[in-house]
Amino acid sequence: MKVAILGIDGYLGWPLALHLINQGHEVSGIDSFARRYRVHELDCHSLTPIEEWTYRKIMLSTVQVAGFKFAPITLGVSSPSFIRTFLQDVQPDAIVHLAEQPSAPWSMRNVEQASITQIENVIGTLHLLWAMHEVCPDAHLIKLGTMGEYGTPDCVIPEGEIPKRCLGEHVWYSNEDSTPQGYLCPMSGLQFPRAPGSWYHLTKVHDTYNIIFACKAWNLRSTDIMQGPVFGVKTEDMGDKESLITRFDYDEQFGTVINRFCVQALAGIPLTVYGHGGQTRGYLPLKDSIFCMTLAIENPPKAGEYRTFNQFERTYSINELAQIVFEAGALLEMNVKIAHYENPRKEAETHYYKPHRNKLIELGYKPTKDITPAVTLLLRDLMPYTSRIREHLVIPETRWDTMHRQSEVLK
Amino acid sequence: MKVAILGIDGYLGWPLALHLINQGHEVSGIDSFARRYRVHELDCHSLTPIEEWTYRKIMLSTVQVAGFKFAPITLGVSSPSFIRTFLQDVQPDAIVHLAEQPSAPWSMRNVEQASITQIENVIGTLHLLWAMHEVCPDAHLIKLGTMGEYGTPDCVIPEGEIPKRCLGEHVWYSNEDSTPQGYLCPMSGLQFPRAPGSWYHLTKVHDTYNIIFACKAWNLRSTDIMQGPVFGVKTEDMGDKESLITRFDYDEQFGTVINRFCVQALAGIPLTVYGHGGQTRGYLPLKDSIFCMTLAIENPPKAGEYRTFNQFERTYSINELAQIVFEAGALLEMNVKIAHYENPRKEAETHYYKPHRNKLIELGYKPTKDITPAVTLLLRDLMPYTSRIREHLVIPETRWDTMHRQSEVLK
Repeated sequence: MKVAILGIDGYLGWPLALHLINQGHEVSGIDSFARRYRVHELDCHSLTPIEEWTYRKIMLSTVQVAGFKFAPITLGVSSPSFIRTFLQDVQPDAIVHLAEQPSAPWSMRNVEQASITQIENVIGTLHLLWAMHEVCPDAHLIKLGTMGEYGTPDCVIPEGEIPKRCLGEHVWYSNEDSTPQGYLCPMSGLQFPRAPGSWYHLTKVHDTYNIIFACKAWNLRSTDIMQGPVFGVKTEDMGDKESLITRFDYDEQFGTVINRFCVQALAGIPLTVYGHGGQTRGYLPLKDSIFCMTLAIENPPKAGEYRTFNQFERTYSINELAQIVFEAGALLEMNVKIAHYENPRKEAETHYYKPHRNKLIELGYKPTKDITPAVTLLLRDLMPYTSRIREHLVIPETRWDTMHRQSEVLK
Repeated sequence: MKVAILGIDGYLGWPLALHLINQGHEVSGIDSFARRYRVHELDCHSLTPIEEWTYRKIMLSTVQVAGFKFAPITLGVSSPSFIRTFLQDVQPDAIVHLAEQPSAPWSMRNVEQASITQIENVIGTLHLLWAMHEVCPDAHLIKLGTMGEYGTPDCVIPEGEIPKRCLGEHVWYSNEDSTPQGYLCPMSGLQFPRAPGSWYHLTKVHDTYNIIFACKAWNLRSTDIMQGPVFGVKTEDMGDKESLITRFDYDEQFGTVINRFCVQALAGIPLTVYGHGGQTRGYLPLKDSIFCMTLAIENPPKAGEYRTFNQFERTYSINELAQIVFEAGALLEMNVKIAHYENPRKEAETHYYKPHRNKLIELGYKPTKDITPAVTLLLRDLMPYTSRIREHLVIPETRWDTMHRQSEVLK
């Protein structure tokens, strides 16, 4: 199949490109290099020594059969004609859209970054949808959402839509008075209500609604993958070639929690648990993320269909993650410490959490059941790069509610 | 109170300013004049002969006591510092945000207009929220949403949130198989799921989620008024002064349905009913809209609260509206014809529709029970301007799904 990867130079885009090429697909891509640039701005760099794009491009062309197209544009900021022309040239069967600003703390820093996040993500996807409508309406859009769209409601979270069949007819009642007011249970597909927790997470919700509308109005097809945070740095497609390794961010803004914990373990810094550490999410190893995107690409929905996959195997609290890193560290003879910091975010620190996740498994996804071995492997993979760690960047200082400052350790 | 009206030169902004000044409030405002400009671009004009802004400003200063501030900016497009500086100068108690692109067809014309709509509305509100956070966090944001955020689900629509108390514990079941899977009814405030039907309607949903987050993260307070389409052209605050009249759009893009029907009746053109005409919504006269915004301003929510008002009295199908205009026309000795046109939109033409609307009534709103007299009055108010009608602009040609072209009359 012809697959266009938007954000091909990124953490997920690069290993996905390698995997799809190994699977015999024809890959093309765009990237604005915003991630490289923004991490440099933080006075940081990928912990892994990633290659420059021009060299990566050469490596790709040695393994793939078909020609490779590349365009350095920023969706949503560039004119809509850029993405239209790119898709016109490439005529992809599938488009994997990873070209979004992916950091919640980055989006919370100031009005400029909040605004850039919402423009790049929401308007970027809007431009993409129009371009698909105009030049490749049969292509399949694979879009990364996030489990964070749902927040932490005190009920089971379905995969995207509220289930259509209900037990009774009257299920919602007003709490204004004690008289049942007869809220009918919806019988047709309404989205499960979203409750996102940052300007970044909001963009994923806005995208969701924009894409649903495009599928309905224009008969486009899309898979929206609600991923838990991904961790890890190597996949089988890289073999032993260090030059093929993907980027690895561990700073407060672009490093997700397991990545950050592993780097803290390596540097001998206490793991930064935010608040009580009861925040519970589903996490997944890099190879599972790539596996699922490939499954989605190879099993497209029908025209007009918008489908949601929740992607994770089991859920862990932050305290459990810290314990896993502690134990993985012990296996590698590290003495890992854990500290509770003031939570810089506004989020529930203990909560009910029960999302569903069956659709990918029905397509053949074999999830990693226990993440502990993958965390141990990650620690081992990162050991050669310990000297590259910039320690001052791992303490949170972007706050949700007030002036930004480094969080204090809780007594 | 000090009230800042964003979009003060518009259809609702202008009569609201007149009303608030008459009520003794101190009014300030901004406007980009985008509405005047965009209607000119359609080769159209307000049916009513509205005054230029500089003259309107002089009229305002003769009736109010306090100084009047005005700034011509486009939210979302201008730098965020414009709105921050404005709010810093004004220090409002309430901010009424009407400065959004309000037309669904206009947003569906092409990618540029879809993009401008989402940037002006979503990023505009985002800039406003940041400015409030930074310079007037206690101010009350009154924002116009639309009943169109909800779409037409086959269940009762509550006012914003899913009611908190449920009959039983397990209310949603999966339709994947016949085994109840125990979807718990949410016990805490989740938003009722939205299902908007145009790029414009989507912006109102995006705003909703952005504002909810700002209330939660920053303790801002906001009232989101889900209005049905408003009609009418005069309010008591204008007295007999034609120079105080508000604008009146009747073209396919900026004219809402009752306004358009009245102009068609006056021009002797058959009323353009889209499709079967079973589309059902709540409509309200201009004076009710102004009344409700004033009620909201004078009864602010508490800090951190986001509240939703659904605003309409009863609902009408398009066929019923056409009948009302027919009868109002008969009273004025007009021979009104009704025609069914191909529906240019993607929408249900017959559907269940039962939204709740109690919160404004609890605050003292006395709604117009029957809109027929108000429609008759509107027809009479417009009669002096019949010669200004540009007839070619009232047939729909913006289509939701394909190349734009004039809709055909259905046999």
